[in-house]
Amino acid sequence: MTPKEYDLIIHNGTAVTVNAGFDIIDSALICIKEGVIVSIKARTGGTPLPETVEAINADGGIILPGLVNTHTHLPMTLFRGLADDLPLDTWLNEHMFPAESEFITPENVKWGTLLACLEMLLSGTTTCGGGYFLEDDVAAAVAQTGMRAVLGQGVIDFPAPGVPEPALNVAHAAGYVDKWMDQAATVTPSIFCHSPYTCCAKTLTAAKDAANRKGVLFQVHVAETKQERENSFKEHGLSPVGYLDSLGILDENTLAVHAVWTDKTDIRILEERRVKISHNAESNMKLAAGIAPVPAFLDAGLTVGLGTDGCASNNDLDLFGEMDSVAKIHKATTLDPTVMGAATVLKMATINGARAIGLGNVTGSLEPEKQADIIVVKTSQPHLVPLYSPESHIVYSMRGADVSDVIAGGKILVRDRQPVHLDQERIIGKVIEIAGRIKSKYK
Amino acid sequence: MTPKEYDLIIHNGTAVTVNAGFDIIDSALICIKEGVIVSIKARTGGTPLPETVEAINADGGIILPGLVNTHTHLPMTLFRGLADDLPLDTWLNEHMFPAESEFITPENVKWGTLLACLEMLLSGTTTCGGGYFLEDDVAAAVAQTGMRAVLGQGVIDFPAPGVPEPALNVAHAAGYVDKWMDQAATVTPSIFCHSPYTCCAKTLTAAKDAANRKGVLFQVHVAETKQERENSFKEHGLSPVGYLDSLGILDENTLAVHAVWTDKTDIRILEERRVKISHNAESNMKLAAGIAPVPAFLDAGLTVGLGTDGCASNNDLDLFGEMDSVAKIHKATTLDPTVMGAATVLKMATINGARAIGLGNVTGSLEPEKQADIIVVKTSQPHLVPLYSPESHIVYSMRGADVSDVIAGGKILVRDRQPVHLDQERIIGKVIEIAGRIKSKYK
Repeated sequence: MTPKEYDLIIHNGTAVTVNAGFDIIDSALICIKEGVIVSIKARTGGTPLPETVEAINADGGIILPGLVNTHTHLPMTLFRGLADDLPLDTWLNEHMFPAESEFITPENVKWGTLLACLEMLLSGTTTCGGGYFLEDDVAAAVAQTGMRAVLGQGVIDFPAPGVPEPALNVAHAAGYVDKWMDQAATVTPSIFCHSPYTCCAKTLTAAKDAANRKGVLFQVHVAETKQERENSFKEHGLSPVGYLDSLGILDENTLAVHAVWTDKTDIRILEERRVKISHNAESNMKLAAGIAPVPAFLDAGLTVGLGTDGCASNNDLDLFGEMDSVAKIHKATTLDPTVMGAATVLKMATINGARAIGLGNVTGSLEPEKQADIIVVKTSQPHLVPLYSPESHIVYSMRGADVSDVIAGGKILVRDRQPVHLDQERIIGKVIEIAGRIKSKYK
Repeated sequence: MTPKEYDLIIHNGTAVTVNAGFDIIDSALICIKEGVIVSIKARTGGTPLPETVEAINADGGIILPGLVNTHTHLPMTLFRGLADDLPLDTWLNEHMFPAESEFITPENVKWGTLLACLEMLLSGTTTCGGGYFLEDDVAAAVAQTGMRAVLGQGVIDFPAPGVPEPALNVAHAAGYVDKWMDQAATVTPSIFCHSPYTCCAKTLTAAKDAANRKGVLFQVHVAETKQERENSFKEHGLSPVGYLDSLGILDENTLAVHAVWTDKTDIRILEERRVKISHNAESNMKLAAGIAPVPAFLDAGLTVGLGTDGCASNNDLDLFGEMDSVAKIHKATTLDPTVMGAATVLKMATINGARAIGLGNVTGSLEPEKQADIIVVKTSQPHLVPLYSPESHIVYSMRGADVSDVIAGGKILVRDRQPVHLDQERIIGKVIEIAGRIKSKYK
């Protein structure tokens, strides 16, 4: 038997490539071989499809790069809706920290992570970034799913699940990075310091040094709340961003997560150091942290990706909903309807998200030689009719539930809205079981 | 044949009643006869179901009152995504007004309205308010669908579709109200003055007088933008709310739509006059109007419902997405995570929305003697697992696409996510045809 020319072809849809020219290709034909996009072009009427092992007909819908969620804490799906609408300290100290200390075990982390991957894949996200405790178990679960991910082992100056002795935190994270460096094609390890207020200067610099030695992304929550900024000035005489800069933490391999309370001076530092930003609008709103000055970040030329944050503070992992929120909220706060246009926001959820977590050459756009991380959205439903502009629909009208097919690294992971490999019923059953135990204790 | 005891029973779900005590009933059994809820209670294990013509098994999901969208312009589905991210005057004068003047015909209004009803029903909205031009055609289309609606004939001091002579506007609206007063069980007529800046004092007072004589709701856009407020002070020496009050327009049968730019004095007036408020958060954000001071409205005891506004400024009619936005945005602007809790927001999208448009005794909660306007949401999907709190899930995690069954006035309008009576394919086909003509001209 002669081998087929391609492994997978996606056709009969409008491809929104999110390439440098933001090309939109009607009647697109995307040819994939060995997990990689070989070609993407318009199919002229009547041309026969090339020989292929599998083909996906987009039915006149929209074909997009898989979305990139730059920040989440995967196992926190276990705590979705456990505690809402509370002051931050009550939420953290009376709900999240106790629940984490008791229920973040390797087994529970595995099932929470699988549920998160299932939810993300079904809503069109093929790549995620972030970190948590027990990241070795998170990485093992993610690797099973076929999703692409940059996963940081959490570092914090408190006893934490998996690392009861804080002094060993950085060494533990470095060991995790070594283990996962070439373990799975789709998983890239990283180090994630929780924040400048939960890690001392020594921890922060040691963790960044370790990340640099290993050549991996360094992630850190920074300037999330007003209180954090005020305390930083009191303690260090510097803003949170200024303080991290004084420690030499900030460079192009650092992802600053949140960056809500940042002023012009901070933005100049972030710009000079070429720091990447993860913007988590819905989480920042729900926890009443505030709204990051993203239009100013973009004016400064910063690379900004979107993140949903964990399920306990959102409460979902749907990047379509996040795009809609991001496109709207900054218009309201600046009173300028021209900021954060649909194409800008779509880039943040795809190519700029990929760049933010160090995967800009791998994913985030539909271009030859990139990994085939692709989603198909059918547009035949009432809320997507009529269609004047694909990017407007993607940002303002689509929801995760509209995604019909999801491909990562050339593998079909979701087909006609159903997961292909993951056992949805079993994962849900396990999480409901775990949640029953959490509920009996913390609700 | 003996007649069955009930026409419809809904069972095996958690009913979030949104009654005065916000009762949540596990294993609920809701019995319906002649369109009305006869009883709602917990079904004790093993009790056989009463005799009924039809039954809906909620499969352990959540049963809710149908959502109430207090403000939209139904036919504007035709313009969904036609023009986004533009300054308000460019959007209105170069896109919306020209498109409306050419394409708002009785035939087009009918198909745009049917598409809107389809979208709303499929996403769990059973009642809507609002208004537009050619409202007679809108009402005729809505009446076909089985949705409940309070529909206002638009009044504006410009030549408008259906009323080329502005001087005849109020008389035209009064005639429309007479015609629809007892025309359809589910349609209630109303008068909708566009705004204090597009209607002169004489038009506003004449229209309000007509509404009072007929005993119907008077709707008006007010204080939507900062510019409107500034101009109002220049022209009348009063805020938009103060100006309407000076004309005697404000009372408990007036729905103030938007009310974004309102200060303490305005809120005191709205409170004294017992004016109802329609809060359209996503539209206000997208058009960069700003964010209404809703926590202050609630502190003042005002009745506030939610609205999506028209599809050209949102760009969808999904009240689940709107609830999520509303619950989050006010936390971000007040920096207080305890404002706009999930239960508060759910009430705005149901019972308080119903009260805002004058249907508080008819719909908006699951209670005996109310109309059976009910929706069922299955909770077996990954993004709704686990479930600690139904109201948290409804507001923060659910989307319109999660709604499986929709009942209005006891009639099943959506079953297993599919419209029962409406011909979805035909409606979509017609709208695509109309949009093709719009696109060739304005895109």
